[in-house]
Amino acid sequence: MIVLVGFMGAGKSTVGRLLSERLGCAFADTDERIEGRAGAPIKDIFSRAGEEAFRALERDVVAEELMGGSGVVALGGGALGDAATRAALAEAVVVHLEVSFEEAMRRLGSDDSRPLLAADPGELYEARRSVYASAADVVVATDDRGPEEVAAEVARRVRPPPHARRIPVPIPGRNHDVLVGRRLIPNIDELLPPFEGAENAVVVTHPSLTAIAGEVATAMARRGLTTQVTEVPDGEGSKSLAQAEQLYDVLAQAGAHRRDLLMSVGGGVLSDLVGFVAATYHRGMPVVHVPTTLLAQVDAAIGGKTGVNTRHGKNLVGAIHQPAAVVCDVDVLQGLPQEEIVSGLAEVCKYGFIAAPDLLELLDKRAPDILSRDPELLEEIVAACVGIKAAVVARDERESGERAHLNYGHTFGHAIEHLSQTKSQVPTAEPLRHGEAIALGMVCAACLASELGLLDDDEVALHRRLLGSLGLPVSAELSIDELEEIWRHDKKYDGEVRFVLLEGLGRPRSGVVAPRPVLERALERVAIA
Amino acid sequence: MIVLVGFMGAGKSTVGRLLSERLGCAFADTDERIEGRAGAPIKDIFSRAGEEAFRALERDVVAEELMGGSGVVALGGGALGDAATRAALAEAVVVHLEVSFEEAMRRLGSDDSRPLLAADPGELYEARRSVYASAADVVVATDDRGPEEVAAEVARRVRPPPHARRIPVPIPGRNHDVLVGRRLIPNIDELLPPFEGAENAVVVTHPSLTAIAGEVATAMARRGLTTQVTEVPDGEGSKSLAQAEQLYDVLAQAGAHRRDLLMSVGGGVLSDLVGFVAATYHRGMPVVHVPTTLLAQVDAAIGGKTGVNTRHGKNLVGAIHQPAAVVCDVDVLQGLPQEEIVSGLAEVCKYGFIAAPDLLELLDKRAPDILSRDPELLEEIVAACVGIKAAVVARDERESGERAHLNYGHTFGHAIEHLSQTKSQVPTAEPLRHGEAIALGMVCAACLASELGLLDDDEVALHRRLLGSLGLPVSAELSIDELEEIWRHDKKYDGEVRFVLLEGLGRPRSGVVAPRPVLERALERVAIA
Repeated sequence: MIVLVGFMGAGKSTVGRLLSERLGCAFADTDERIEGRAGAPIKDIFSRAGEEAFRALERDVVAEELMGGSGVVALGGGALGDAATRAALAEAVVVHLEVSFEEAMRRLGSDDSRPLLAADPGELYEARRSVYASAADVVVATDDRGPEEVAAEVARRVRPPPHARRIPVPIPGRNHDVLVGRRLIPNIDELLPPFEGAENAVVVTHPSLTAIAGEVATAMARRGLTTQVTEVPDGEGSKSLAQAEQLYDVLAQAGAHRRDLLMSVGGGVLSDLVGFVAATYHRGMPVVHVPTTLLAQVDAAIGGKTGVNTRHGKNLVGAIHQPAAVVCDVDVLQGLPQEEIVSGLAEVCKYGFIAAPDLLELLDKRAPDILSRDPELLEEIVAACVGIKAAVVARDERESGERAHLNYGHTFGHAIEHLSQTKSQVPTAEPLRHGEAIALGMVCAACLASELGLLDDDEVALHRRLLGSLGLPVSAELSIDELEEIWRHDKKYDGEVRFVLLEGLGRPRSGVVAPRPVLERALERVAIA
Repeated sequence: MIVLVGFMGAGKSTVGRLLSERLGCAFADTDERIEGRAGAPIKDIFSRAGEEAFRALERDVVAEELMGGSGVVALGGGALGDAATRAALAEAVVVHLEVSFEEAMRRLGSDDSRPLLAADPGELYEARRSVYASAADVVVATDDRGPEEVAAEVARRVRPPPHARRIPVPIPGRNHDVLVGRRLIPNIDELLPPFEGAENAVVVTHPSLTAIAGEVATAMARRGLTTQVTEVPDGEGSKSLAQAEQLYDVLAQAGAHRRDLLMSVGGGVLSDLVGFVAATYHRGMPVVHVPTTLLAQVDAAIGGKTGVNTRHGKNLVGAIHQPAAVVCDVDVLQGLPQEEIVSGLAEVCKYGFIAAPDLLELLDKRAPDILSRDPELLEEIVAACVGIKAAVVARDERESGERAHLNYGHTFGHAIEHLSQTKSQVPTAEPLRHGEAIALGMVCAACLASELGLLDDDEVALHRRLLGSLGLPVSAELSIDELEEIWRHDKKYDGEVRFVLLEGLGRPRSGVVAPRPVLERALERVAIA
């Protein structure tokens, strides 16, 4: 608990409210509570019942608030006069918002709601100052500073370090952490590593995410960096060389150099584009990704793949450029449309299938709570997925082997996604989201593995039960001819289609080739709802 | 020595000539020599003096040619009948160009210049075949093959491995060699490392260099790669994102993937551009540079810096992408304009000043021979410079420290180059070449070091004597105000200009700041011719 004390006019109520927002916790103003309980303004309580009666009421309210446990409490200016109240503060962090007498008088000015100012305010000021001084754990000056600035300093000085799980991505020479947790974005300045020599931080986002990007910029400004938020349009169309060139221009106009910091706040489109720009501006500058979708938090923003599209293909131009950090704040997931969450959960299941039977168990047991976005569960599953991807990427950064396992369900899935965008009748009326297509792709892969004798029927059934319980599609009528037509046009096609299949839960095998009759039997099973 | 033997019509003269071009050595056809000496066609020698007289003449000519030592000799079809000739071939590699009797008859057709065909050609064929068989070290079939193809096979089978110095660039994970030597381009297919999974080699060059690029492509085609030469315009203007995009399109249209090979044949503009495209196509593909200027061989093509310009600056966009190999064939330097050689020698001197007093000694002693492009000297100085740069880059790939030493003379030099392009009166009527500006820059740096007490007068004099003897400018009237104006607009400028200076030959120190009066005194010395 953080308790703000200080003379009238120190800004306890205003700063307390800002501080609680910043810390994401409850806020209570004891004077307000007293007025609420008495049903009258403090001035009237004083004038009708006298200071003694007010102090008694105050003692009760304060005791109650301090029982509350966590959060921020703004304590009335005279409450510390009570010994019991002082004793009750032993466990709290007491912050003295210090204001000079002159500044307090200036701020209060014509405020006639303060009953005690009628007496000798100078004497009162001197008396209380020593009380505040002896009680305070932390003193923060408030003269000549706005309440935001004061709240920021209080936050910096009192708050326990934000709770973030640090998941290392141990790639020699490009070591970095992925942070997963809650309330990370408002505190991102404290969570990131130092950026030696940085002067600018350019934050790139979509128009719909400027509020979050602004929070990031505000936090980074506290590091003394010149910050700037720049927008690129939503959608895959932004992954272009033309858009990259615009960002190069923004950086050049900001006078950015290779020790400055580029940040992305958005989904996979943005981490791909911004990562590419960071990889290539001044031959490579640090980038931090703040993924704002579940899919980006568990997949796109992790592992250093960056890219833009050309008219000849997706991700045809790109680089492997590991970020300096990735900040997965699961709080941002609360604001997403439900179908975005569901889509992202398909990739979460993928990690379970290829590497984490315990994650599968969690998803199976807690599907409803996950769908209702229980924050602790979200944090747990994002951390689990990031941990798996980080380990795979560390072992095979450039996808010469094991990293291919992350494509489980994707050979079918990409083709299904493509079909759903181009053929109105197959497999659904509306284009499928990426995750929906991948879910179907994993069902296809499971059925194919079963036909090849690699998985048993229970494991196929688990695919369908789990994905279905998360709201993902698990059956579709698919034409082998249409799928093959798409595969044949893939840039990796060399006469054979190679699948990542499971030889059991958590045991992926890549490069599996299947005879056409076996593929046909598998697709027949996928069609059965 | 390589001696071609075989029946009439085997193609000894034609193949021999092609082979000698391919190997870059002399060619002699004994029949031609005999005709030259006798002043008559062989047919006439036979008819006038008889076979015995011809064989006597042949014995002399052959003995003379075989004394000659190296090169390719095409031996008359019957010369091996002589025991002394056979004995003289002990040290040579004897190649039997095998032709079937039927094919020989077909090829000779109506050729009536062959006196011996008048007798029983079948008997002659059988008799000679056993002689060729017992003499040959190597047999190459010629039926159904063109002379180019036969020459290529002979070259592959007989030639000693091309002489190339292999200079390793030991960067962990990106280890590669720079090859320095002569006749490397025609044999580049044998010099490069294997490229597993490669199907295409796309060779990028300038219109003026298509002959060399074609040689590279022809050689790479012998590896079974599909090769293609594509051109980009000469000049710095090609270092653009638009040009990079065109190359992405060429690669995509060729169906190139990330295991295919991109090659640059040209100067620094091309290795920068092509290196950048290779760094970013499919998130990085192998690139081989074949630098065709002295400057590119000793500097631009080595070390993995790549980049394109935007309207906001030179090399604003780029990547560090180490090549899979660099092939510095000093033979290409023979075709350059003299001012190109002189310009490149400035960078050569730079390596001497910062790291190699023995290279300075060689340059000092052999300046005239270097300027006349003695091939062995060129090879030696290119290898020395590459060795220095490779070692520096291996220790500091991303220029966080020591790599800055390679900028000796460049802080002054770049500003001088810029001034010469924009101010007609300073310091020369014509814009300076890069190397000329760098030479002046090193003289400035030496004078400044002397003013700061780091170098003695002899060392300053050595700068001027050496650079001057190579045809580079060593004095100019420079305005401190104009230089500072340019430095202030540099992207690295932070209120101070930092120089790389010498504390003695071979002992560079970076980050040196000089007070303005000292700078002024240094420039006064530079002005004195």
